[in-house]
Amino acid sequence: MKSFTKYLTFNTKNRREIIRITDEIKKAVAESKINEGICLVSSMHLTSSVIVQDNESGLHRDIMEWLEKLAPYRKDYEHHKTGEDNADAHLKNLLTHLQVVLPITNGKLDLGPWQEIFYCEFDGQRTKRVIVKIIGI
Amino acid sequence: MKSFTKYLTFNTKNRREIIRITDEIKKAVAESKINEGICLVSSMHLTSSVIVQDNESGLHRDIMEWLEKLAPYRKDYEHHKTGEDNADAHLKNLLTHLQVVLPITNGKLDLGPWQEIFYCEFDGQRTKRVIVKIIGI
Amino acid sequence: MKSFTKYLTFNTKNRREIIRITDEIKKAVAESKINEGICLVSSMHLTSSVIVQDNESGLHRDIMEWLEKLAPYRKDYEHHKTGEDNADAHLKNLLTHLQVVLPITNGKLDLGPWQEIFYCEFDGQRTKRVIVKIIGI
Repeated sequence: MKSFTKYLTFNTKNRREIIRITDEIKKAVAESKINEGICLVSSMHLTSSVIVQDNESGLHRDIMEWLEKLAPYRKDYEHHKTGEDNADAHLKNLLTHLQVVLPITNGKLDLGPWQEIFYCEFDGQRTKRVIVKIIGI
Repeated sequence: MKSFTKYLTFNTKNRREIIRITDEIKKAVAESKINEGICLVSSMHLTSSVIVQDNESGLHRDIMEWLEKLAPYRKDYEHHKTGEDNADAHLKNLLTHLQVVLPITNGKLDLGPWQEIFYCEFDGQRTKRVIVKIIGI
Repeated sequence: MKSFTKYLTFNTKNRREIIRITDEIKKAVAESKINEGICLVSSMHLTSSVIVQDNESGLHRDIMEWLEKLAPYRKDYEHHKTGEDNADAHLKNLLTHLQVVLPITNGKLDLGPWQEIFYCEFDGQRTKRVIVKIIGI
C-alpha cells in the first residue's frame, strides 16, 4: 500500500466563491503513482467545503443563492457573541459537507462524465487549505 | 492490499425514486474477498445520490417531500438558461451528498441494525451509474 | 496495510445533544499504530451523525436551532404511521451526513487548526454506537 499527501492553498478575492480544482486533483493523483485506491479531498476549515458538481456558472449561482436561502447570513447567531460574524458559513459547510472521497481506477480519477471537483468558499479573503490524501496500490 | 471495482446501472421508470441496493453492495463485498477495509459507494452523476437510511416506504415519501420543500423544482433557475430543467436535482444531490463510505469487518459490511443502502434518483428515466470501490486486505 | 476497528457507545441524557469526541478518535488513531491512512468515523444509526465543526457552544446551539428549522419535529410525517415519532431525526441525519473521513499523517489526525469531531444525537436517551475504522500503513 502507498500513501500520498498534498495541501492546496486558497485565498479568495470574494467572501464567497466556487473554484474548480479538478486539474489540481488529477495532478495529485498522477504524482501519487497510485493505480487503484481512493482520494480524500477535504477542507481543513469549518467555513468552506469540497463538492462534486457541474462546471456550469449558472448552476454555481443557483447553488450560492440556494445556500443563502437555507443558511442565511444574519447578525443574531449565538456564535457571533464570540466576536465572529460567520455562523452562516459554518452552516453552509454542514449543508454541503466538508469533503468528498473519489475513486481511482487504472491510475485515474474514476468520475462520471460531468463530475468536476470544486472548492466552495463561504468565508474567504484569508488563507485556507484543502488536504488531498490518496491511499491505494 | 487489494482493490475491487464494480459499476451498478440504473434507469428508473419515474423521475424520482429511492431504490434499495443493500444486497448489491453486500454481493460486491463478497466478490471482493476483502476482509477488512472500506467500501465507497458513490453516484457518478450530479443529480442522484447514495444514502444510508431506513427501509421504510413512509420515511422514503417523507424524505422526497422534504427534499422537494428545501430544493424545489422551479422553472427559473439560472442553470435552466442552458436548456436544462434539472437544477433542483443538482441541489437535492448536494443536500443528501453523493456518496457513503461503508466499513467492512470480518468480510462483511459493518452496518448498524437498521442501516440499509439506497440509490436516490432525482432526475431519472435515463441510464445512470454508481461506482462501488472497495479497498482493504 | 493494517486495519483497526473500534466502537464508541453513547446514551445521551437529552433527546438532542452535540458531544465532542476528538479525544476518543485521537486515542483510536494512536492505538491503531497506523502512520499514513484514513479514519472513517460513522454513525451506526439513522438518527445521529458525526460531523467536523468548531468546539464553540454558541455555534452548537445555532446548529441545533437551524436543523430544527430545516427539518422540524412534526406529528404528521408518514414514517410515524409505523408508531415511530423520530422522522425529523432521520432528516437531520441526512442533512448533516452520517459520517466523516479523516486523514492520518505521521501517525496523527491531519485536521485544520479549529477542526474538532462531534457526535450529533437527534433521537437519544438510548444506547447508540459509532464505528471508527482506520486503514493505512
